[in-house]
Amino acid sequence: MFEIVGDGNAISAKGFIAGATYAGIKSFTEDALDIGILASETTASVAGTFTTNQVVSPSVTITKSRVESGVCMGVVANSGCANTCVGDQGLEDAKEMARLAAKQMNISEEQMLVCSTGLIGVELPMALVRQHIGNIHLDSSGNAFSRAIMTTDTIPKEIAVSIKIGEDEVIIGGAAKGAGMIHPNMATMLAFITTDANIEPPLLKSFLKKAVSQSFNMIDIDGDQSTNDTTLLFANGLSGVSFKSEESDESKIFQEALTYVCVELAKHIVRDGEGSNRLIEVLVEGASSEADAKRAAREIVSSTLVKTMVHGLDPNWGRIMMALGKSEIDFKESDVDVFISGIHVVHGGCSIPYLADAVVSSMNATEVKFKIVLNSGGFDAKAWGCDLTEEYVTFNSAYST
Amino acid sequence: MFEIVGDGNAISAKGFIAGATYAGIKSFTEDALDIGILASETTASVAGTFTTNQVVSPSVTITKSRVESGVCMGVVANSGCANTCVGDQGLEDAKEMARLAAKQMNISEEQMLVCSTGLIGVELPMALVRQHIGNIHLDSSGNAFSRAIMTTDTIPKEIAVSIKIGEDEVIIGGAAKGAGMIHPNMATMLAFITTDANIEPPLLKSFLKKAVSQSFNMIDIDGDQSTNDTTLLFANGLSGVSFKSEESDESKIFQEALTYVCVELAKHIVRDGEGSNRLIEVLVEGASSEADAKRAAREIVSSTLVKTMVHGLDPNWGRIMMALGKSEIDFKESDVDVFISGIHVVHGGCSIPYLADAVVSSMNATEVKFKIVLNSGGFDAKAWGCDLTEEYVTFNSAYST
Repeated sequence: MFEIVGDGNAISAKGFIAGATYAGIKSFTEDALDIGILASETTASVAGTFTTNQVVSPSVTITKSRVESGVCMGVVANSGCANTCVGDQGLEDAKEMARLAAKQMNISEEQMLVCSTGLIGVELPMALVRQHIGNIHLDSSGNAFSRAIMTTDTIPKEIAVSIKIGEDEVIIGGAAKGAGMIHPNMATMLAFITTDANIEPPLLKSFLKKAVSQSFNMIDIDGDQSTNDTTLLFANGLSGVSFKSEESDESKIFQEALTYVCVELAKHIVRDGEGSNRLIEVLVEGASSEADAKRAAREIVSSTLVKTMVHGLDPNWGRIMMALGKSEIDFKESDVDVFISGIHVVHGGCSIPYLADAVVSSMNATEVKFKIVLNSGGFDAKAWGCDLTEEYVTFNSAYST
Repeated sequence: MFEIVGDGNAISAKGFIAGATYAGIKSFTEDALDIGILASETTASVAGTFTTNQVVSPSVTITKSRVESGVCMGVVANSGCANTCVGDQGLEDAKEMARLAAKQMNISEEQMLVCSTGLIGVELPMALVRQHIGNIHLDSSGNAFSRAIMTTDTIPKEIAVSIKIGEDEVIIGGAAKGAGMIHPNMATMLAFITTDANIEPPLLKSFLKKAVSQSFNMIDIDGDQSTNDTTLLFANGLSGVSFKSEESDESKIFQEALTYVCVELAKHIVRDGEGSNRLIEVLVEGASSEADAKRAAREIVSSTLVKTMVHGLDPNWGRIMMALGKSEIDFKESDVDVFISGIHVVHGGCSIPYLADAVVSSMNATEVKFKIVLNSGGFDAKAWGCDLTEEYVTFNSAYST
């Protein structure tokens, strides 16, 4: 239904441009970039989802209100400074950064969104922003934009897919950043998705909401959630292909492809979690509602004790049962089956005599899969997380100082 | 109002006896003990609070139902095996262990409660229990009982206080175990409190509930919660002092002393958290409700990023604001003040220029205190947690294998 575009990123779709520069907001390294602009050459529909944290960056406040109009042309994003907990100055700075970026493109400032990520409690160094933002050349460097939004990320996260609709092609591309403070509910991450499909804002919002609920809202790194999380989806229509209702076959393909892009970016984020070595995938099957399936999968993937058991290759499935038990969903302990990497270890809520060594060696992989079958109904959900390592602790013990 | 009893423990109150033995349930060490009995010489009132995890040990199921009668004589507790996720056999084993302990005391089996703690998913080795339980001599060794309930605890946790009511003396004593999987909501710990006061079961329950809500429910080690958590409070009346209503001055003193005992045991548990080096105390002041104050304090003390910043002596107060923001309580960011070890670092939601070195050195202590003033109302709450260290991860990466 859709194919992956080689070296695809947020500007793979027609009519998107991007660029980045180093302004000195984050520490200098040879290839450091810390301000990027991603934009459409023509006005685009836009939809967004935002952090539920009550302490939010003024950058989020501005963007959230501008997204409400449903149309815009681009976004400027900086890394190194979250522009959070800095009082009214934060609002002024976010507005000014958007205004400066809009000026680069000769568009009105309301057409430009703004995102910030990095340390909380320090002001954006606006002198540096003013001095360097003019160096951004919107010369089609999608990868530079992906790198400009990195904080503790070790690699840029980007992808694009191509959908065939009859003779026409629609592209969906995207870039994301994550690394720490990632938790279900759109926490601590930025993601920018673009498409050249033609979609009106209300439908675009519905597509995005569904995709996010199965991807960015189903990942966890450390249970914390950020003040700045934002996912934006831009659709500029330049492919000439329109989607008009959720119900058409074409729309279903678009939804599937968009969800795929979001899931892949989400998994990239988790795989690059601070100090993590392994991706954990938790599949909950047979829940009595979709909400229960999601809640159980997220509870298990977020458990500190589950994360450490994966790090230690310890098939201590009692911790999975414990996490399931505290998830407050509807299930019967004596109906539960558990599989580790495909090996059946719990049936009817009790241990099956299994070869411990086989389970241990199956866990020695870059992706560890847990399947929990509740036998309570027909709803499934997947969540992703990463193991908790000594490196995570070391890393996060010395972040600001 | 009350004084600490030197070397006090769960049998400091009149008419309580205890003993323990090693049955081979947990790994052998020279001074290992793994089954203990704590009992009153006469019938006592009893009250309990239990885990809210849906996956519960049959030991909890039995005890919960027996506590409903409001009277009993004692409890048998084992460490090394949680007797959880073992099917119907777990119920049989819990009943049999209680029956064997009751036989030791020549009382009916319904008079004996039962608690288990340790690994999930393995059956109680009943052959060992049957063989060794008779070796328990109820010879007033309260400390042996405290040691018999230890799992990964490094030290026994016990305390007693003496209250003067006119010419009379009432003692409240207790023992507890914790170490891993400790989270608000009565999670993953056992605590046994005894008193020689005379208190009818309904009032006893109310005293216990208040004390637990300010102590064991306000601590966190790793955000996980166990399948076996239990707090029991026994009152045998042998002091001759009766408490008849919550409202009397004497009852208020009793409540205060009981809460103190529970808070001290809770702090012992947190201080002994797996791999932890520092106790974190979070005081939230000026919340608009008691529930909000408690929720905010617990959310902050449970945050992985707050825990790691304490481990690293990093005054990264943005993480406190982040945790506050995700707590879903009612507050205004621009009204918040934050103090680290008494040093004012945030005013009106924004950073105050403070001497970072002074804050760092103030955090280099065995107890680190955060005060968050919300300026939204008149309610306060305290919660306790511990730092997250590399040792915690190492420890929990290899628990069952």
